[in-house]
Amino acid sequence: MRKVTYGAACSLDGYIARVDNGVDWLRWTDDVQRLTSEYWKAVDTVLMGRKTYEVARASGSGAYPKVDNYVFSRTLTVDPEPQVRLVRENAGDFVAELKRNRGGEICVMGGGELARTLLEAELVDELGVNIHPVLLGQGIPLVPSLPRQIDLELLRFEPLSAGCLYALYRVTRR
Amino acid sequence: MRKVTYGAACSLDGYIARVDNGVDWLRWTDDVQRLTSEYWKAVDTVLMGRKTYEVARASGSGAYPKVDNYVFSRTLTVDPEPQVRLVRENAGDFVAELKRNRGGEICVMGGGELARTLLEAELVDELGVNIHPVLLGQGIPLVPSLPRQIDLELLRFEPLSAGCLYALYRVTRR
Repeated sequence: MRKVTYGAACSLDGYIARVDNGVDWLRWTDDVQRLTSEYWKAVDTVLMGRKTYEVARASGSGAYPKVDNYVFSRTLTVDPEPQVRLVRENAGDFVAELKRNRGGEICVMGGGELARTLLEAELVDELGVNIHPVLLGQGIPLVPSLPRQIDLELLRFEPLSAGCLYALYRVTRR
Repeated sequence: MRKVTYGAACSLDGYIARVDNGVDWLRWTDDVQRLTSEYWKAVDTVLMGRKTYEVARASGSGAYPKVDNYVFSRTLTVDPEPQVRLVRENAGDFVAELKRNRGGEICVMGGGELARTLLEAELVDELGVNIHPVLLGQGIPLVPSLPRQIDLELLRFEPLSAGCLYALYRVTRR
C-alpha cells in the first residue's frame, strides 16, 4: 500500500492560512527546503482540494512538476489545466483505489477539508507539521470540524530555524 | 516587573479541552510533573477565568495551595471559597497592577478567554504549551478569536514521553 502523508505548515493555534488564505507569515527557511526535498524524492502523486489548488494557481504555482496532480472538486467540470486531473467522485473511494495501485508516496497538499475527508476514511498514514512561532488568532484550520478524535504517534521531531518546530506523526488506526 | 506565563496542554489542532470541557485525553507523565514542579518554584500567584475555575472545582481541585488565587468573573458576586479572591474589575487593569507589585511569577492557568484578554493587553510574557499527539477535531481553543496576530519567539523545546512536545515561547511585543 502506498503511503499517504498530509503535510502542512501551521501556526501554534492550528491554522494553515489566514481567513483570506494569506500565508505571508510562513518562513521558508533552508532547513524547510531540505526537509521538503528529502520528502519529495519518494513522492509521485499530489492531491489537492479545489480551494487549495485555486489559491496556489492564483499565486502562480498550480500543478507540481514531475508528479501526478489530482484536484478534488464537486463544482469544476473539466480538468483545469493539462497537467491536472480533476476528480469529481468520492475522494475516499478514489484515494483508497490509488493506494492499492503501484506507485510512489502520495502527498496531500491540503487543504484541511480534503485532509479531514481522508483522515475520517482512515486513508492518511502520516501527518507532518511545521509549527510556526505565531498565534494567528483566526484562519483556515489544519483540520476543520473533524467529527471524532484521531490519535497520533510521534515519529520524529526537529527544531528548525526561525523558531519553527517540525513534527511527524503516524496516524493511529482505531 | 513580574513575569506572566500562560501554560496549557493542547492537542495538535490547538484545543485545550473537548467541547464538554473534557480533558481525559491529557497525559500526565513523570516529565510533565518534573517540568511543572520546576516552574511552580517561582510562582506565587495563579489567575483563572471563571469557567476554568468552575471546571477545576467540579473535579475536586479549586484553589491552588500556597499561592494567591484570583478568579476573574463578571457574573460571580462573592469569593467562591476562602482561598480565592474574586476579581470583577477589568482583567487587564488588574493584572497590569499585579505585575507592577513586588512578588513572584504569575501563572495564567486559563482558560483561553482570560489568556486572550491578557495577550491582547500585552501582559503575557511567556507561553508554554505541551502539544499532545492527538487531533481532537473540536473543542475549547488555546486562544479563542484573537483579533490580531501575535508573534512568538521559541525559547525552549523538549520532547516528553508519550509523544508530547513541550515548547516555551516569549511573546513578542509590537
